[in-house]
Amino acid sequence: VTEPNAFTGAALEDRGSDSRRQDPRWVAAQHRDPHARAVVAGSAGLHVADGRLALVPLAELARGARALLLGRDALGPVFAYDEDSPPADGVLPPFVAAGGRRGEPPAGSADGRVALREAAALLPQADGGLAAYAAALLNWHRRHRFCAVCGRATDVALGGLVRVCPRCGASHHPRTDPVVIMLVIDGDRVLLGRQPSWPHGRYSALAGFVAPGESLEEAVEREVLEEARLRVGAPVYEASQPWPFPSSLMLGFHVPWASGEPDASDDELQDARWFSRAEIKAAARDDADDDWETPGDPGDELRLPPRLAIARRLIEAWLSR
Amino acid sequence: VTEPNAFTGAALEDRGSDSRRQDPRWVAAQHRDPHARAVVAGSAGLHVADGRLALVPLAELARGARALLLGRDALGPVFAYDEDSPPADGVLPPFVAAGGRRGEPPAGSADGRVALREAAALLPQADGGLAAYAAALLNWHRRHRFCAVCGRATDVALGGLVRVCPRCGASHHPRTDPVVIMLVIDGDRVLLGRQPSWPHGRYSALAGFVAPGESLEEAVEREVLEEARLRVGAPVYEASQPWPFPSSLMLGFHVPWASGEPDASDDELQDARWFSRAEIKAAARDDADDDWETPGDPGDELRLPPRLAIARRLIEAWLSR
Repeated sequence: VTEPNAFTGAALEDRGSDSRRQDPRWVAAQHRDPHARAVVAGSAGLHVADGRLALVPLAELARGARALLLGRDALGPVFAYDEDSPPADGVLPPFVAAGGRRGEPPAGSADGRVALREAAALLPQADGGLAAYAAALLNWHRRHRFCAVCGRATDVALGGLVRVCPRCGASHHPRTDPVVIMLVIDGDRVLLGRQPSWPHGRYSALAGFVAPGESLEEAVEREVLEEARLRVGAPVYEASQPWPFPSSLMLGFHVPWASGEPDASDDELQDARWFSRAEIKAAARDDADDDWETPGDPGDELRLPPRLAIARRLIEAWLSR
Repeated sequence: VTEPNAFTGAALEDRGSDSRRQDPRWVAAQHRDPHARAVVAGSAGLHVADGRLALVPLAELARGARALLLGRDALGPVFAYDEDSPPADGVLPPFVAAGGRRGEPPAGSADGRVALREAAALLPQADGGLAAYAAALLNWHRRHRFCAVCGRATDVALGGLVRVCPRCGASHHPRTDPVVIMLVIDGDRVLLGRQPSWPHGRYSALAGFVAPGESLEEAVEREVLEEARLRVGAPVYEASQPWPFPSSLMLGFHVPWASGEPDASDDELQDARWFSRAEIKAAARDDADDDWETPGDPGDELRLPPRLAIARRLIEAWLSR
């Protein structure tokens, strides 16, 4: 048993099952509950107070469809609240547009807000989990205001877990995009790759979205072949992690190398190569900072992914065996 | 090593990586290739010939956006082709609206078509896999013709792996909805549940969609608690299976019971209860037919899920240990 993954562990004892959410009176009662509180987020980040994710009394916020019911904790209902108003064209970006691998606003600013990734890095485990849940749901509502079937503006239902089209009747559920991420292992060496946009020296496990009509295991084999031209054996599942940038679910595998030598001639990666156990150990010891974007020392040969990423967990699990 | 799961094993050596698909000339060359063939599907089912999924020469079909590039096999490009025209209101149902747990058209009709589930039950493994891939992609295009961000009709891009909005510029990718399915185990007994709509005696493993911002393991724990009021220990991943009804990805777990007695008072299940190893063994021996919908003998105490479902695999794996 190890530490739980970042972005897991939302301390909601109850997300509110669909059967209760289908009762509009139950949902309305959650909104009216004097103990109703909300995670508040917007383009500037998530509200924090006293080193915790702030849970703002819902009564202090403008009510309405912008408050989405996450569930209930020991004290009462918990909502997610989007503080940004849609612009004139109605098109909002995901509230944390920047993901784990792109530029992102700097650390917690003076007015008590943190970026989503910082919520996992700086706040207690359960707060990171709650931030991930709120972010995933807010991101989805921001970018799914219209019916994909017929184009009509949709209505929020089930307290925020569904949007329903008033014209064609289609129900739309939040998306969760499965991504396989895999450490290719050949005895005492592992394969890591790097994207051109990453800071100097940064390498990580290969990863890619699961495609329509394939199993996780097929996705692992396909992605390693596409990105590094290697054949692999049977993938072994290790762990999963929500990654709400904006809506991914990371599914981590160890997979044995079978044949071929790394070749990153596909456009996606700039390089893919083997690293020895000694190189990985040295890099794991060296990295004091845990931020994806900090520029590397030009002398760095290898900088591992930050500890909050499942890629790092896959590497540490291999190192420890 | 056991038989592969149904709906896996599409015999495409190459799905066509994004980097090649981004080149419109490469995509156009696939359409023009004299060896281009298509899986053809519509409301009547998938075309079959000589006990195999039919691959119809693309030149025999009306060309255009209705042919979606699946990838390439040893002979050349393979497409998916939707033979149904949109109705006047433009709203098409998923091409196989009926899933593994709902009513579905009867077996392969005389004109050489089979329903999607039959493609997995009756055709060779690779054909079931290809049918799943084609179905998942066709289903998605049918129900995602408009931009969820701004409501405008979108254009097909990357040969069918993306739709792009000409107004707001958003890219939309096919959805794959992760579903956890888990066999709760307590020594020599397992927990199965039944939905009110199922045929007499049918029970299966519990299952549910992964919610925003949770790991697979958290989803397993939440679903078992919501559906059967049981607490469980650490879930152990077993296998995955695409389930294109219309776009699910089944993620199968064994999970040890921890506390509580089954209580299906949540509306979703009609019953949830323990079955002994002897009961499961007897049921596994008895079921000659493999169809979800065949009405059970009123004397049947227990009918297991059909062999093509991952739920059955989870049960058989437990039986064999």
